[in-house]
Amino acid sequence: MRTVIKGSGSFIPENIKKNKSFSAHLFYDENSLPIRHSASNIITKFQQITGIKERRYADETMTTSCMAAFAGAAAIKDAGIDSETIDQIIVAHNFADISPDTRHPDTVPSLASRIKNRLNIKNPSCVAYDILFGCPGWLQGLIQADAYIKAGMAKTCLIIGAETLSRVIDPHDRDSMIYGDGAGAVITQISNDASGNSGIIGSNTASYAGEDVNYICMGKSNCNNNGASDNYLKMQGRKVYEFALKHVPMAIKNCLDKCNIALSEVKKIFIHQANEKMDEAIVKRLYELYNIEEVPDDIMPMNIQMMGNSSVATIPTLFNMVSKGLLQGHTINKNDIILFASVGAGMNINAVCYRT
Amino acid sequence: MRTVIKGSGSFIPENIKKNKSFSAHLFYDENSLPIRHSASNIITKFQQITGIKERRYADETMTTSCMAAFAGAAAIKDAGIDSETIDQIIVAHNFADISPDTRHPDTVPSLASRIKNRLNIKNPSCVAYDILFGCPGWLQGLIQADAYIKAGMAKTCLIIGAETLSRVIDPHDRDSMIYGDGAGAVITQISNDASGNSGIIGSNTASYAGEDVNYICMGKSNCNNNGASDNYLKMQGRKVYEFALKHVPMAIKNCLDKCNIALSEVKKIFIHQANEKMDEAIVKRLYELYNIEEVPDDIMPMNIQMMGNSSVATIPTLFNMVSKGLLQGHTINKNDIILFASVGAGMNINAVCYRT
Repeated sequence: MRTVIKGSGSFIPENIKKNKSFSAHLFYDENSLPIRHSASNIITKFQQITGIKERRYADETMTTSCMAAFAGAAAIKDAGIDSETIDQIIVAHNFADISPDTRHPDTVPSLASRIKNRLNIKNPSCVAYDILFGCPGWLQGLIQADAYIKAGMAKTCLIIGAETLSRVIDPHDRDSMIYGDGAGAVITQISNDASGNSGIIGSNTASYAGEDVNYICMGKSNCNNNGASDNYLKMQGRKVYEFALKHVPMAIKNCLDKCNIALSEVKKIFIHQANEKMDEAIVKRLYELYNIEEVPDDIMPMNIQMMGNSSVATIPTLFNMVSKGLLQGHTINKNDIILFASVGAGMNINAVCYRT
Repeated sequence: MRTVIKGSGSFIPENIKKNKSFSAHLFYDENSLPIRHSASNIITKFQQITGIKERRYADETMTTSCMAAFAGAAAIKDAGIDSETIDQIIVAHNFADISPDTRHPDTVPSLASRIKNRLNIKNPSCVAYDILFGCPGWLQGLIQADAYIKAGMAKTCLIIGAETLSRVIDPHDRDSMIYGDGAGAVITQISNDASGNSGIIGSNTASYAGEDVNYICMGKSNCNNNGASDNYLKMQGRKVYEFALKHVPMAIKNCLDKCNIALSEVKKIFIHQANEKMDEAIVKRLYELYNIEEVPDDIMPMNIQMMGNSSVATIPTLFNMVSKGLLQGHTINKNDIILFASVGAGMNINAVCYRT
């Protein structure tokens, strides 16, 4: 008996924000000193490192829970299930519904309850809750769904990742260009595959909460005149990069080892779209752990170029694109071994090994 | 094999806020009209309905995650376990760490990560995450811990409920007198009881997200001059009361039925300390479902008189008091059947049947 993904869906905001739209920004460093490069130089360098050319921003009238409900509805439709049969709605986010004006997170009721309401699901036995776990929250939701299915507590789960990072970014911080908005979702069920091979083979989670705990946290604007409130998402980029390179490849290997799967069997790695160069370096180091020098060309689908880093939403939106054949050069075939992996605030890392 | 509670702990703020401290408040109704009774009359009536005489407020320097870490440390000590053996830290709250000045919830990193940091737990395999599920969040965390233990994903879990409601209340709303601050925690493990009888027998969760979804939500102050932001916890008291009376007794009965336990076998009901009269009415109706007219005198321990309603923290702090023999007239004995039950924002209800 395994937990299988029966369908997926996403909500991608229509509002495209290209890199050049940042060219009038005044960027400051973390000591509030103006950065001595032109905005155009900053943007060029940014694009070289992150691979990001554009990202999507939610309209002012949109909320995180609303995007999440659209993604959830699409996954339900794709799976072809009756929404009243869902046992658990697990919603990963990190900032709840945020007002575009006040930037105040609205956490009550939970986004999961709002989404259940929007999806018009009446069944009282459908449990709907939110999980906060940094960027790896959606993948951790998938791991939790697997636990409920294994424990006999659920047969069908809806796992959604949704975030509106455009409302927590500091316009005077170069890192603000990294982030985007979006929502992705999957439906999981107990496998009814006669062979019983399809589904989640195993998972691994690693959390480091020593000095790492504040590598990604809330803080003040880099511009002294932009208010003193700790309302902005702040990242110690160099520390996060070093942390990820040190810990993520081994966490993925530990997942594969638990599953008794060799890296050479893996057909695709769906990694959290944090930063193109960082993701490439993580995957390169993972192969080095197996003494493989050449990373296979088509191993890592990416959509960060158009989507930016949308936190919990990157993996489910990317998976949805690839599984629908919407990402050029990437297909998933029946019986493929694929990996999901993420890293983010906490600092948390997780990985799931899955047979399609 | 059952999931047993090995230890408990709590953090109760020292700062006592008595009812009379509200006597200078100007109270308005939900239409921003002044309430035509003296504050002393309002307070007297409030105490009659809710049973609340005083509540505890966290000091300005205290955070929700800090209270939670104190409660967690006490539970770890009480259980006599090595904190490095904890597999999951599950933290229920609804407002994250809130600044007493700006009332802005700080959600990143998760409170669970901050708590793991404060508890100085190094083991990377210890997964720490937050759950948002209204007041029943702590009990849902207990149900999730049970699932991980059943699924073989965890052997030892720390489940914490912590909240600082004093920072989300509207001083011009009579309901503000209901709320208090606090944190409670338990350690759960796989049973090593030879008989295998002790532990969680079963659970039930019911969620209603129709028009009920906004019975408890964020809103503006009742006083027009107190800012336009939706930063205050608002409750449609009458609707919540009717909802609870209609749905909670049946949800508890469904839990008992799943467990094949008769109500007459239950020795204690640890119910979310929402409001004394409402809790008494819920329990009375539960007994009516079994055609029992007289509710046993000592069935429902309560500490709301001194603690107010501290959301996710009410059940674990109450359970800790009773299990330590600190609540007069209430003891728990080996082999007792006890019930946990909660209701709150979402609207969510849950119940757990447990043998000590």
